[in-house]
Amino acid sequence: MQKPFITSWSGGKDSALAFFRAVQQGHVPIALFTMFEEDGERSKSHGLKKQILSAQAERMGLPLVIGQADWAGYEEEFIRHLQNFKEQGIEMGVYGDIDLQDHLDWVEKVSGKVGLDVLHPLWQEARRSLLEELVEEEFKAVVTVVDTARVGEEFLGRVFTRELIEELESLGIDACGEEGEFHTTLVDGPIFVEPLPVEFGEIIRNGQYSMLEVKLQTGE
Amino acid sequence: MQKPFITSWSGGKDSALAFFRAVQQGHVPIALFTMFEEDGERSKSHGLKKQILSAQAERMGLPLVIGQADWAGYEEEFIRHLQNFKEQGIEMGVYGDIDLQDHLDWVEKVSGKVGLDVLHPLWQEARRSLLEELVEEEFKAVVTVVDTARVGEEFLGRVFTRELIEELESLGIDACGEEGEFHTTLVDGPIFVEPLPVEFGEIIRNGQYSMLEVKLQTGE
Repeated sequence: MQKPFITSWSGGKDSALAFFRAVQQGHVPIALFTMFEEDGERSKSHGLKKQILSAQAERMGLPLVIGQADWAGYEEEFIRHLQNFKEQGIEMGVYGDIDLQDHLDWVEKVSGKVGLDVLHPLWQEARRSLLEELVEEEFKAVVTVVDTARVGEEFLGRVFTRELIEELESLGIDACGEEGEFHTTLVDGPIFVEPLPVEFGEIIRNGQYSMLEVKLQTGE
Repeated sequence: MQKPFITSWSGGKDSALAFFRAVQQGHVPIALFTMFEEDGERSKSHGLKKQILSAQAERMGLPLVIGQADWAGYEEEFIRHLQNFKEQGIEMGVYGDIDLQDHLDWVEKVSGKVGLDVLHPLWQEARRSLLEELVEEEFKAVVTVVDTARVGEEFLGRVFTRELIEELESLGIDACGEEGEFHTTLVDGPIFVEPLPVEFGEIIRNGQYSMLEVKLQTGE
């Protein structure tokens, strides 16, 4: 059964692959949904500016819906958006989680409150096969955030390739970064009509996290 | 200004390029719209079965809306669908015409009746530059219908490449096929999340038109 869906969009490789698979299954994407910091400046966790996420959405031919909240108001704001989606006839939310049970439980809880179905196309799949698929399908994701307690800054700006996967694994790092070891920014792939023209700026340090600034090449 | 749009979808190269450009301009696609013969078996002009158009739509992550009419009821059925689109909040229709003034006039007339905007992203552009763009952007279109009064059956099944363009032009044939000299079926390109797994069957002859049967490789 084809369902109209929104996809939880971080701008990185896992949400991209989850979206890709949902479309391959015949579901119909209506919008991307991203949570931002309360000041609206940057997205949660991946720390991307709206400009970058909007440029990704444009290349997917989809509108970007933004929620804004601090962590205290996060759940309420998230549910408010899910309720809006439901009222617009959207039937399902798609999420890129691989095996964070707590997060899946939370997503099912808040979705259940408004009667939205949930799809986790990557759930409990072998990390290696997910990474292989990303590379084979020619997704191009760049490492833009690292948790320096676990991953060195020298990985910032690296494109996600077979070599990078092997390098991360040889260092004992989960190459999916599922637990926040690092985050990526998608700059090209089969879900984009054209590549994202990005350039990388300074490294911004925030506690143990180091983030490579991502900007669009043309204008701000 | 971003506008939600429907695209007039033949399944061939011109409607694909028009769609691609509309998305590049930041507009948001909501559905594909294709007119079929009254019996619902095949699409008008390109003669494609619903199965093929649905498989294309799936790879674009969009629903396919089908109108059905004989030529006498065509305009009424077309307007009825445009009216539905308008009522769903869709603001614009996108069309792949290059320079058929009569068709553009007709599209503007019927769209004006229901208050839908119209975009013709290819209008009056040099045919050669359109063809170059299709090849450069890696659209893969196959010739599946020829008007044998102007184009030989040996072109059926040929992929649209630079060589094919030059061959057609050397024979004095408009390589865009704008006046119905031939039609193409899109099997891959930057607007698809994955290629269409097609195989070609028999040649079906209908008066001066010869049509190569297009089927999906897996199942009917």
